[in-house]
Amino acid sequence: MQVFLVTYEISAATEAEAVEWAAAVAREQTIECVDEGVPHDFIFEEVLGKVRAVVPAGPGVFRAEVAYNAEVAGGALPQLLNVIYGNTSLHVAVKLVGLEVPDGMAEAVPGPRFGLAGLRDMVGRPGPLLCAAVKPIGLAPEEMAEIAYRCALGGADMIKDDHGLADQLWAPFRPRVEAMAAAVARANRETGGRTLYFPSLNCGLDRFADYARFAAEAGAGGYLVMPGLTGWDSVRMLAAGPHALPVMVHPAALGPYTNAGTNGMAHEMLYAAYPRLAGADISIYPSHGGRYGFSRGLCLSVAEACRGPGVMRPILPAPGGGLRLETAGAQYGLYGDDAVYLFGGGAMRYRDRIAEGIGALKAALA
Amino acid sequence: MQVFLVTYEISAATEAEAVEWAAAVAREQTIECVDEGVPHDFIFEEVLGKVRAVVPAGPGVFRAEVAYNAEVAGGALPQLLNVIYGNTSLHVAVKLVGLEVPDGMAEAVPGPRFGLAGLRDMVGRPGPLLCAAVKPIGLAPEEMAEIAYRCALGGADMIKDDHGLADQLWAPFRPRVEAMAAAVARANRETGGRTLYFPSLNCGLDRFADYARFAAEAGAGGYLVMPGLTGWDSVRMLAAGPHALPVMVHPAALGPYTNAGTNGMAHEMLYAAYPRLAGADISIYPSHGGRYGFSRGLCLSVAEACRGPGVMRPILPAPGGGLRLETAGAQYGLYGDDAVYLFGGGAMRYRDRIAEGIGALKAALA
Repeated sequence: MQVFLVTYEISAATEAEAVEWAAAVAREQTIECVDEGVPHDFIFEEVLGKVRAVVPAGPGVFRAEVAYNAEVAGGALPQLLNVIYGNTSLHVAVKLVGLEVPDGMAEAVPGPRFGLAGLRDMVGRPGPLLCAAVKPIGLAPEEMAEIAYRCALGGADMIKDDHGLADQLWAPFRPRVEAMAAAVARANRETGGRTLYFPSLNCGLDRFADYARFAAEAGAGGYLVMPGLTGWDSVRMLAAGPHALPVMVHPAALGPYTNAGTNGMAHEMLYAAYPRLAGADISIYPSHGGRYGFSRGLCLSVAEACRGPGVMRPILPAPGGGLRLETAGAQYGLYGDDAVYLFGGGAMRYRDRIAEGIGALKAALA
Repeated sequence: MQVFLVTYEISAATEAEAVEWAAAVAREQTIECVDEGVPHDFIFEEVLGKVRAVVPAGPGVFRAEVAYNAEVAGGALPQLLNVIYGNTSLHVAVKLVGLEVPDGMAEAVPGPRFGLAGLRDMVGRPGPLLCAAVKPIGLAPEEMAEIAYRCALGGADMIKDDHGLADQLWAPFRPRVEAMAAAVARANRETGGRTLYFPSLNCGLDRFADYARFAAEAGAGGYLVMPGLTGWDSVRMLAAGPHALPVMVHPAALGPYTNAGTNGMAHEMLYAAYPRLAGADISIYPSHGGRYGFSRGLCLSVAEACRGPGVMRPILPAPGGGLRLETAGAQYGLYGDDAVYLFGGGAMRYRDRIAEGIGALKAALA
């Protein structure tokens, strides 16, 4: 029987209590039923999660490892995530902190199509990668295209839509994506560069596949997706789909998962393991030194969890959330070459001189 | 300009600090850009969120009301949710506590197709409504169909799949849904009843619309959806789609939203306002007296927030999470007639006598 392993941090007064909780979690996530309601022994043997170990992990905190039969995930990412942390996400004392998924589940969850290595090939050069975010909402497609063009001339490796760009009347999806992709292609022709454009697939799920195809055909170099809004499976669909391009995930609406104390998820789960499992190639997270206040150590562990051994192939961390020219050097000192440095609202202050601004940021990173 | 109103609870030391935070939220959720990067005045006037009021709400806590231009939501639910609580969900001191959406946004977000009144008509009788959950994972389709048949004979108003039923080899979606729907239809013919069957749409998003159509054609009476796994927009798609049936939402994976202290959402937001906004007709939440420990008062406010005035039309609260025969009377005393009482793993202990068990539960509720 093929299994995947999930580690929970359980807050409990005693080890005996933690052992009881671990058994409750293994049941909640699988059969969710009293023993008398289970008519076949194989259901206890094959369907019910198995607690492998419960070990102390600090004062009042224990780590419980639970093994689940891969078949309980039912061949699809939503149910896999449901087994990993579905109902038990409602338990205040249970936090998701670890995950091991065997390669054999690759049909259901193939993981990142490109990953860190694939993206490095596409970018075609060593060193830190710079991504500029084009904003604000309210600009016309041609205005955004002009910014994108200048950012590409300035040497941005990637250009992304502001994640809030959707189908606003000021710049509906199709004309915006066409104009932006064309502008980046023009800059690439002029410079011989390979700047990639990531449009935001911020749309209803009934339009999601159409918008992805449209973007790919217009020349997009990747997709920006918000799994907190369209679900982690929207990432899997893109990575496994007919128009696969690198997927960058953005954490909008996901904040509470790492702000829930003894509940929720470890940062490495939300910003590295889940993106890798779903098939993202780049994971944006709020970096130390920006507007959100994650600590330096935490940000480094997220980056290592993206790039190191773990669920599926390694991906690129993308620290963002308020990076500035003055802090770029310190950021590079923290993350090194294999990271996508995201510059957004702050970079826009350069306006017509944005190419120069991007150049200065690149220099500060190098 | 049509606006929607969002109320945030901001934890801050002083009112001046809270006012500053409120302005930062209004900016973060819309233009997310420094002033120098905004080239047109209309972007400040029309795109930037407007803080309407900041008022003290307790020691170190303030309530900030922010008005957003409906156009910034870009005509789609994901971006609407992104403006309501996207990036700012990453701010530890900002919690979502209130929401007012004008009727004029109905094209993008039509809300519940049936609601409390529509479901009452479909059920065709007054009094409390009982929903049985068929489980565990591991049963064959015909075994689950037999349980569903007996539950319907016993008088269950609704029968739902266990939310973890997906495409496991023991009972893949299509044969399971066909067998269950046929069994419930047979019971309805025999009793003259109107029991509704809610299959779980727990599948990849690329199969979601197909599975919904298949279920509708097989005779399902509703859909069970987990917005924490397939996204809130999957609910909107069903409610607005060509095979609309009542949608029951299940909170799997959403726990951290109400466990995040000064961050996250008020329970009424997660379990009432969001379901209503997305178009759910029934909202499952973990009731007082079950396995999850929400307080009595909190559960009652969730129920009132489902049934009372608010975003879109009223819907039915569905208290669940470990209700038992012994506690059914107390539950009814708490919620009254307009609620769907959910009995799952506990009810399964009756096995072959499940019809009798459902009858006893109905009697205990009445």
